[in-house]
Amino acid sequence: MIVNFAERAHNHNWELDPVVRSLLDTDFYKLLMLQFIWKHYPTTRVSFSLANRTSSVRLADMFAVEEVVGQLEHVRKLRFRKSELVWLAGNTFYGHRGIFEWKFLEWLEQDFKLSDYELSVTDGQFQLAFDGYWPETTMWEVYALSIISELKTRASMKKLSEFELDILYARTKTKLWGKIERLYGVPNLSVADFGTRRRHSFLWQEYVVKAMASNLGRGFIGTSNAFLAHKHDLEAIGTNAHEIPMVLAALANDDQALKTSQYHVLDLWQSTYEGALRVMLPDTFGTTQFLKGAPEWTADWTGQRMDSKNPYVAGDEYIEWLKERGRDPRDKLVIASDALDIDDIIGLHAYFGGALRAGASAQDFRQAADFQDSRKWTPGRRIRFSAGWGTLLTNDFRGCDPKGRIEFDPISLICKVSDVEGRPAVKLSDNYAKALGPASEIERYRRVFGTEGIANAGLVA
Amino acid sequence: MIVNFAERAHNHNWELDPVVRSLLDTDFYKLLMLQFIWKHYPTTRVSFSLANRTSSVRLADMFAVEEVVGQLEHVRKLRFRKSELVWLAGNTFYGHRGIFEWKFLEWLEQDFKLSDYELSVTDGQFQLAFDGYWPETTMWEVYALSIISELKTRASMKKLSEFELDILYARTKTKLWGKIERLYGVPNLSVADFGTRRRHSFLWQEYVVKAMASNLGRGFIGTSNAFLAHKHDLEAIGTNAHEIPMVLAALANDDQALKTSQYHVLDLWQSTYEGALRVMLPDTFGTTQFLKGAPEWTADWTGQRMDSKNPYVAGDEYIEWLKERGRDPRDKLVIASDALDIDDIIGLHAYFGGALRAGASAQDFRQAADFQDSRKWTPGRRIRFSAGWGTLLTNDFRGCDPKGRIEFDPISLICKVSDVEGRPAVKLSDNYAKALGPASEIERYRRVFGTEGIANAGLVA
Repeated sequence: MIVNFAERAHNHNWELDPVVRSLLDTDFYKLLMLQFIWKHYPTTRVSFSLANRTSSVRLADMFAVEEVVGQLEHVRKLRFRKSELVWLAGNTFYGHRGIFEWKFLEWLEQDFKLSDYELSVTDGQFQLAFDGYWPETTMWEVYALSIISELKTRASMKKLSEFELDILYARTKTKLWGKIERLYGVPNLSVADFGTRRRHSFLWQEYVVKAMASNLGRGFIGTSNAFLAHKHDLEAIGTNAHEIPMVLAALANDDQALKTSQYHVLDLWQSTYEGALRVMLPDTFGTTQFLKGAPEWTADWTGQRMDSKNPYVAGDEYIEWLKERGRDPRDKLVIASDALDIDDIIGLHAYFGGALRAGASAQDFRQAADFQDSRKWTPGRRIRFSAGWGTLLTNDFRGCDPKGRIEFDPISLICKVSDVEGRPAVKLSDNYAKALGPASEIERYRRVFGTEGIANAGLVA
Repeated sequence: MIVNFAERAHNHNWELDPVVRSLLDTDFYKLLMLQFIWKHYPTTRVSFSLANRTSSVRLADMFAVEEVVGQLEHVRKLRFRKSELVWLAGNTFYGHRGIFEWKFLEWLEQDFKLSDYELSVTDGQFQLAFDGYWPETTMWEVYALSIISELKTRASMKKLSEFELDILYARTKTKLWGKIERLYGVPNLSVADFGTRRRHSFLWQEYVVKAMASNLGRGFIGTSNAFLAHKHDLEAIGTNAHEIPMVLAALANDDQALKTSQYHVLDLWQSTYEGALRVMLPDTFGTTQFLKGAPEWTADWTGQRMDSKNPYVAGDEYIEWLKERGRDPRDKLVIASDALDIDDIIGLHAYFGGALRAGASAQDFRQAADFQDSRKWTPGRRIRFSAGWGTLLTNDFRGCDPKGRIEFDPISLICKVSDVEGRPAVKLSDNYAKALGPASEIERYRRVFGTEGIANAGLVA
């Protein structure tokens, strides 16, 4: 074989192997929220802060701050490409055309920019914060997370020989295939990739998404990653996240306004998107209080995402709530997205998609064959169920390192709104361990929203 | 990335993707035997025939006879390269320099050629035979086997998508690594690759050999494949095979000469190689009768290969035989080479390399840690043990096909001497299922050699 001299020299010329290849390489819902923010809150000042909740992993000992800077600067130089803007303009999202306004797309092309950042190291961890107008800070969240996540991967890979790297990926592919095999043939499956932010690497996420798309047919409904959706002709999945209710709550001037802010979000969202994309996220300040106090019209929404409550409990709670309001739950949707893995996905699918028969529990469902056994299960959905499979889809390298270490295991990285116009931002969630914000503010929020239905559930990456 | 136009066009220009890339791509012992044959039997006419003992796999339904012809013709066009002859001339084999004579190497360079072949199809199987002078037919054995084996692989791979192929190899690498991990750290390990003839493919064998060499250190003693040994600076392993005693037996003119021919082989071999390479293969006509009737000087040989008898039994039998002749078995060597896999290798290593303690059996040894447990095992070899790991090293794709089929499982292909100067060739072996030759001749041989110690053990690929 003749040496490709140009390619070889070019490869050695590389100054940076970028983690983020495109501004579309983010969760699709960030773009929906960006339009919402651009429209309603263009000059609200919002800070985001990155944190590693897995403090035992000292990231700043693994790779240099200069590497982080190089990647962040690379992202700041990116612009939306013509073809990407055309895709946003011309594509149909959730069956709706023209989700993105022309004016917004013009702004994206001409005026969108990312804020400055502050980066330092304390006690082995990177301190990374973004401060500025909300439209300039919000997009940093996913870029920053995927950068830190992939730099960690690269640092760990530097310790492996070529052969060990090959085995690392062989094992992980084997593990991935084991999961896909279990999903293969499960009736009416509905699974999406939600794994951009804490992925092993961009290329691995792409591999996983292609594997799911090639092998699960309609059971794989798409990816939250807009770049991958665009590149591979897949559906872009996702609607909105905690940052909107958190910011609107922080902007509330008194306890009464705080309490109602969570519904104001929904009102503003549905007027912005003219009734499309109506999936609510009721757990920001506790799902139970949210549902109890929710205005009647919220029962017209398509469904809800369950992000911090035991999803079996959360789904049942929503079903009962819908019935009380005279809505048929079978027309509604629940999306589980909290630290899901294969067992949960199949179990939840069985639980919401049909009737478990005498003695069977959700944990007994392991693969398609279990759904064929009418002594265990009969079809007939109680509510539509979708799985938003995140970190344990795109970064499940547990047990795959040929050296037997845990360096490739995913960690719990987050990047959240920390400050809004000088006021601290708070999230309570349905899991005490996932609360965010200063203790005094959390206390105030708990006083306002109560703690009904909130559990102690620990954390998974 | 700029398209490499030349490479792309060249790849489409390929007329043949050769299975056999070099005349050295064979078992090293074939070269040792070739020199022996060239020296002593240059004009003896010997036929070889290929047979698929796994008759349920209809090879001729899987790929066309033209593909076989293309590969066989490619091999006939190959010549020993200068660098290969230099390696044979200059390398040290088993600590001996100049194993190959200059005259033989000259002959290899100038006059070596492969005989014609006869190829047809009957009942879904290829009928492939080689007839001619022994030096022109002997080398076909390994080339023909590896060609048929790899064409089967390629035919099966044509049914898989790119993704399925990727998973096939990921799973097989994972399986291979599981085996290597178990061998890692086993004290005084001695394992060689013997898997050329029934390999999945040349490139997979190369991958396996490199994996073993990179990860097992001195525990991996080398490969029987001369091309891989040359290419990767490894020891070439192997001495001789059944074809020599089979041919010499067929040439014997009466029962007495038949009986003594098995020792004549050894006599001629040791005079040819001046005392080097003295590993005998006593099972051609039954190990027990061989040892009982063997001349005293055979106890001076370095060791024996155990190719068809239960290796635990065969090793113990040899140890007793050596002791009776006043030789210290700890200086001698046994090599197991019959359908070995990881469990056998570790078990045999424990059995011959030390003392099993109260209640422990060879099957209890699974990995290095078992050898550290002095309640189970104490070191102190009874005889040196080496494993010649063949098909289940280089073609263990069982359970790896993502479609769940058995098409990639290895099959029992053989290519053996069938005829010598018009007389049928016979092998009895220590396993009734492995006997070769016409029934009437097998009966005559059994009358001459007896059947003591011969067992019914079935066949493994």
